[in-house]
Amino acid sequence: LLLSGMDVPDDANAGCPGTGSANAGKTSSCAGCPGQASCASGQGPPKPDVSGVIDRLSEVKHKILVMSGKGGVGKSSVTTSLALALARDPKVQVAVLDIDLCGPSIPRMLGVEGEGVHQSADGWTPVGVRDNLCVMSIAFLLDNKNDAVVWRGPRKAAIIKQFLSDVNWGEIDYLLIDTPPGTSDEHISSVQLLMGAGSVDGAVLVTSPQEIALLDVRKEISFCRKTNLPVIGVVENMSGFSCPHCKECSALFPSTTGGAAKMCEEFGIPLLEKLPLDPRLAKCMDDGEDFFEKNSDSPLAQSLFSLASKIKEMVN
Amino acid sequence: LLLSGMDVPDDANAGCPGTGSANAGKTSSCAGCPGQASCASGQGPPKPDVSGVIDRLSEVKHKILVMSGKGGVGKSSVTTSLALALARDPKVQVAVLDIDLCGPSIPRMLGVEGEGVHQSADGWTPVGVRDNLCVMSIAFLLDNKNDAVVWRGPRKAAIIKQFLSDVNWGEIDYLLIDTPPGTSDEHISSVQLLMGAGSVDGAVLVTSPQEIALLDVRKEISFCRKTNLPVIGVVENMSGFSCPHCKECSALFPSTTGGAAKMCEEFGIPLLEKLPLDPRLAKCMDDGEDFFEKNSDSPLAQSLFSLASKIKEMVN
Repeated sequence: LLLSGMDVPDDANAGCPGTGSANAGKTSSCAGCPGQASCASGQGPPKPDVSGVIDRLSEVKHKILVMSGKGGVGKSSVTTSLALALARDPKVQVAVLDIDLCGPSIPRMLGVEGEGVHQSADGWTPVGVRDNLCVMSIAFLLDNKNDAVVWRGPRKAAIIKQFLSDVNWGEIDYLLIDTPPGTSDEHISSVQLLMGAGSVDGAVLVTSPQEIALLDVRKEISFCRKTNLPVIGVVENMSGFSCPHCKECSALFPSTTGGAAKMCEEFGIPLLEKLPLDPRLAKCMDDGEDFFEKNSDSPLAQSLFSLASKIKEMVN
Repeated sequence: LLLSGMDVPDDANAGCPGTGSANAGKTSSCAGCPGQASCASGQGPPKPDVSGVIDRLSEVKHKILVMSGKGGVGKSSVTTSLALALARDPKVQVAVLDIDLCGPSIPRMLGVEGEGVHQSADGWTPVGVRDNLCVMSIAFLLDNKNDAVVWRGPRKAAIIKQFLSDVNWGEIDYLLIDTPPGTSDEHISSVQLLMGAGSVDGAVLVTSPQEIALLDVRKEISFCRKTNLPVIGVVENMSGFSCPHCKECSALFPSTTGGAAKMCEEFGIPLLEKLPLDPRLAKCMDDGEDFFEKNSDSPLAQSLFSLASKIKEMVN
């Protein structure tokens, strides 16, 4: 029952019974819905129009979703670090699409917070971070960075479709898509469009070792299975904290249930990496600086490089 | 522009121009919308029906929303701790409503994860944690705790309305409403219904000291101002970490921009409390244990008690 939201199209009327329902096209709330005729005829709903997405992403080799379930486990930090790690090879073109509409943090983390996007006949031009790294985010469309995006679902679905079909990425090796916490409009829309366009490598799931976070990652795995989205693997973030005073490592969020390792075993999915918490990363993210520039020898940097190599290997 | 989603009713058709628009009731997407006639006549949209909410919440003295902007800053931990702190007085009746539909964590944190709710002619009975503390959450309606709630906005709005109008709370002194990260359907619906019913004390905003988290809290403040929801104050969580080995306190998330204190000054809102990170709290939350039982002398517990007293004072 609770999983059935997947078959409610993003342009459906409120009260849509779901396109798989026996009542599809026949309820009072179907009146005026663009899909009513085709639902009522039993042919199922009209497929979402993905031609724009196919055209636009034809030169993008790999599309990877970064998801988390619970917020604040460092998903955007991992996306940003992963993008910077991949872009250390100047021959590799990397792009980041930030579809966290209510809390976009990627532009600040990449040091391009105040930039704006250009719109031309050829679509939106993403913001360049360096020669081989660019980013698109709702943050670039806000007049004031403190403004809230107070949008209900259908409007969020519309902008995500626009992001996927109107951004002029050019030739890209890796497009990382940073999603908000949860399994709702942003996730349903992006996955439906990418799967409909026939090309998505899969999802990287980020968690912390706490059972409370794992609880939500299991929901994200359930979402991936329901939508046939492959799971590339899991990243356990904030696995420990090295005290800057005594250098001893402590668990910040004790893994009372065996942490991500046990969960991955249970579901038969790879645990890609365990990342320690390093306050210097949080500081770099706040300041929009490249963590690797001054800290490439740190244990966290080494783990992040290893994560990037593993993901590269798995999708190629 | 980006703030205009507030005037799109939750039962509007996709493409609703907003009830405040000059085109309200007149666009092609208005066909079949229940509000079309009243929008087109210039009388504005029909007001959401809040009579059920008014009836149901008439015996609830104080309604407090707990919001965060960014996920993972410990909003649900703060809600849970606050509820437990308030409920230490056996004469005070406390209730928690968890409207984080995609990542409900309150039931686990309160140790009632496996429970179910009873539905009777008189509505849903919330789950009792102890004599003077009860909770309602979507988690109690899931067949399997790993199931994802894959819902688009209108369906989320519908269940929130049901939570606010069909739960039989009884006489309650404090109802804490735990919201998901962001400023979208869950927030718009709950605030519209509570404000429409004429009774909400305000919002407690939870953040961590990082600029990345403060960025999102400023959006939450912008949301509160737009909706005329009073801000009770801000809680800075994860303000520091005492190393269990050397007892030195380190900043986990360095406050590069002055932290919550500077932001509160800027917006003229109270900073209620700064809470240190104590791994024992995370462990209690994972295990559904009452942190105060064994740790009531800890600095974190003392700060939480002080937070509860301040909030009590401010709303009374």
